[in-house]
Amino acid sequence: MRHITFTGLGIVIPVERALRKMRFAGFLTMLLLVAPGMQAQELAQQTPVVSPELAADNSVTFRIKAPDAAEVKLTGNWMPVAPDGQGGFAQQMVSLEKGGDGVWAATVPAMDPELYAYAFMVDGVRTLDPANKHIVRDGRFSTASVLYVPGEASDLYWAKKGPKGSVHEVWYESPTLGLTRRMFVYTPPGYAESNANYPVLYLLHGGGGDEEAWPTLGAAPNIIDNLINAGKAKPMLVVMTNGNPDQAAAFTVSPKLDTESQGAGGMANMLFEKSLVNDVIPYIEAHYQVATGKENRALTGLSMGGLQTMNTSFENPGMFDYIGVMSMGFADLSRFGINIDHSKREAQIKALGAADPDLYWIACGKDDFLYESVVTMREQLDALDFDYTYRESPGGHTWSNWRIYLSEFAPMLFK
Amino acid sequence: MRHITFTGLGIVIPVERALRKMRFAGFLTMLLLVAPGMQAQELAQQTPVVSPELAADNSVTFRIKAPDAAEVKLTGNWMPVAPDGQGGFAQQMVSLEKGGDGVWAATVPAMDPELYAYAFMVDGVRTLDPANKHIVRDGRFSTASVLYVPGEASDLYWAKKGPKGSVHEVWYESPTLGLTRRMFVYTPPGYAESNANYPVLYLLHGGGGDEEAWPTLGAAPNIIDNLINAGKAKPMLVVMTNGNPDQAAAFTVSPKLDTESQGAGGMANMLFEKSLVNDVIPYIEAHYQVATGKENRALTGLSMGGLQTMNTSFENPGMFDYIGVMSMGFADLSRFGINIDHSKREAQIKALGAADPDLYWIACGKDDFLYESVVTMREQLDALDFDYTYRESPGGHTWSNWRIYLSEFAPMLFK
Repeated sequence: MRHITFTGLGIVIPVERALRKMRFAGFLTMLLLVAPGMQAQELAQQTPVVSPELAADNSVTFRIKAPDAAEVKLTGNWMPVAPDGQGGFAQQMVSLEKGGDGVWAATVPAMDPELYAYAFMVDGVRTLDPANKHIVRDGRFSTASVLYVPGEASDLYWAKKGPKGSVHEVWYESPTLGLTRRMFVYTPPGYAESNANYPVLYLLHGGGGDEEAWPTLGAAPNIIDNLINAGKAKPMLVVMTNGNPDQAAAFTVSPKLDTESQGAGGMANMLFEKSLVNDVIPYIEAHYQVATGKENRALTGLSMGGLQTMNTSFENPGMFDYIGVMSMGFADLSRFGINIDHSKREAQIKALGAADPDLYWIACGKDDFLYESVVTMREQLDALDFDYTYRESPGGHTWSNWRIYLSEFAPMLFK
Repeated sequence: MRHITFTGLGIVIPVERALRKMRFAGFLTMLLLVAPGMQAQELAQQTPVVSPELAADNSVTFRIKAPDAAEVKLTGNWMPVAPDGQGGFAQQMVSLEKGGDGVWAATVPAMDPELYAYAFMVDGVRTLDPANKHIVRDGRFSTASVLYVPGEASDLYWAKKGPKGSVHEVWYESPTLGLTRRMFVYTPPGYAESNANYPVLYLLHGGGGDEEAWPTLGAAPNIIDNLINAGKAKPMLVVMTNGNPDQAAAFTVSPKLDTESQGAGGMANMLFEKSLVNDVIPYIEAHYQVATGKENRALTGLSMGGLQTMNTSFENPGMFDYIGVMSMGFADLSRFGINIDHSKREAQIKALGAADPDLYWIACGKDDFLYESVVTMREQLDALDFDYTYRESPGGHTWSNWRIYLSEFAPMLFK
């Protein structure tokens, strides 16, 4: 059955009927309601394309209508990288087959439970799945279509029945950076009804990302809700900041507020770290029902946020009892023009060791391109008898790993 | 200058250097970090495409790299609809010209200040702008790339410097619908520091939409912030619900919570209206610093939400002093299989008239396909001497109009 839909009204009717109706006077403007780019002609010929279609065995069929395309491929963040035969490396792609109706399709065999990002390459043009309205942005890098594959390994990543926390989009003054800045604050189930003071996890994104990364790609609110409801994590607040010190907020909020952050700005100048300590933490502790003291503060972040976690906890050894460094070590990024100051690490490690945090957790994927920097970091920590826990996972520098790390780190906090 | 970026780390480096580096041992996995679908080969040939590019005179150049495409067009929600010469109607599109580098481009002359949605049609395939990471979802209908054109007419739609409210994503119990449901609650600047009790605007989306519509497409938090900061609107809470009675939350939150709402479910069965009165308003009045009584409650919505506004205020005449019906009248939608009960309108109008609300505001676009239903409504209101204000705007059933209506309605409230 062919259908036409009208924005705002939510009416779904067979397309033949719609086209017949359109010919009536007074219906001239109905097409104004149709998604931009939909032609009456096209609609008349259109069979709804279902994509992605998840089968009972977790195989997934991807489809896109492209009658004039010569080649359609599928690219997804689950696909391996291999030599491309031309001296470089490329993510492998899956070729789609063209059907008689101009709809290309490919079925990927049983996929592991996960939250995936994918796109089509239609004659080389990156195209989000037009049939899938669930889309996501990975910082300044890319946009993608989203696929959830259900199962035990991905069970924490979506909202389920049961008590739920709230996510608050709040703006705070940062005198350190001279900006009014945006962050997301998660409060746990029961927060509004309780008089208790909760501990706080500060959760940092990576370079090129922003404060929208953990609430969307990172699924942090769902992960924490589900861990708390399962009795696996203590009720806590989770503060998701913008780690780019020259940016007030994600560029989606306002082009006028945006200064195109180069990401690297947050890598080496220590400004975000200062604003976290001077502006963010005092704001949270003044405006929310939170417990203070190092035993009630945790800090973790990935990649650039891992560096910021390291720097902040080293420079403020009595501030956090729970510290998690994800996918980052004592990296030398000078080849990228980023000069990170590691000269004080020995003194910093000794000072933090003396403060004796309850947990210093380091997590890295075996295939992470920063893996060696983590080896270097661990060697220096070992040489100074610094107490830490190391978690090595499969995979690389990926959101899949960062969601897993959060789901493992949160249960260890505030115990 | 060609660049390559690495997800999570935020490093932007010239691509030649990246490719050279990649050939070193240890960099095999770097490409894992690149947006899915980016090939080393492709990157090596890539000049960053800038799109959309806004010139000083508000002309906008759109670009997309598609070396193998035969035809690339631009479609945007500002483009008119016209007969397509084949018995139907279609949104006009702008053709792009292909450059020698495989990049297609078109420049649209000075555009009016607005918040626009657009997409490319690459050989007939709807493609979001790969160079523009600002994307938006219009309910179940479509996804699009976003373009802001600054100017007086669009000045309310983005975040500016100055005090800001907060948006809270909250879940509440709806015994009426048997669901734990999600909504967004905007609290005005200064709310957290104040002991005042604020009035509340309940703001409803249209069919096919969900609770994410007004905070994103509708720019409601920015509009209300800016109106309050300009002294044009009273500080108020704004509650943005999900108007599909069979849906717990937008499908982006969880596939497991989703029951594919057909939109029409919210049109005629009055279930959402009941849940608004029985579940939402009591929740808000119990959990927030709000003033109660009809003089502190306003209700408005568009299209399906306009019908829900009408139904709720008619059935509960003493509940709201400020009522706004956008882009909806006494519509006969039986041709779409939706049977709205208008049989009680006369009694309802008399009852609401007796309750004497401060403002009953009706807004509709001249080109709205529901225009005639608003004429019918006004005739019935006039016949019963019901006091209302009518606002007729250019254009049709569009988010552009609904943002304008909100910006006009909010200043009239709670005075």
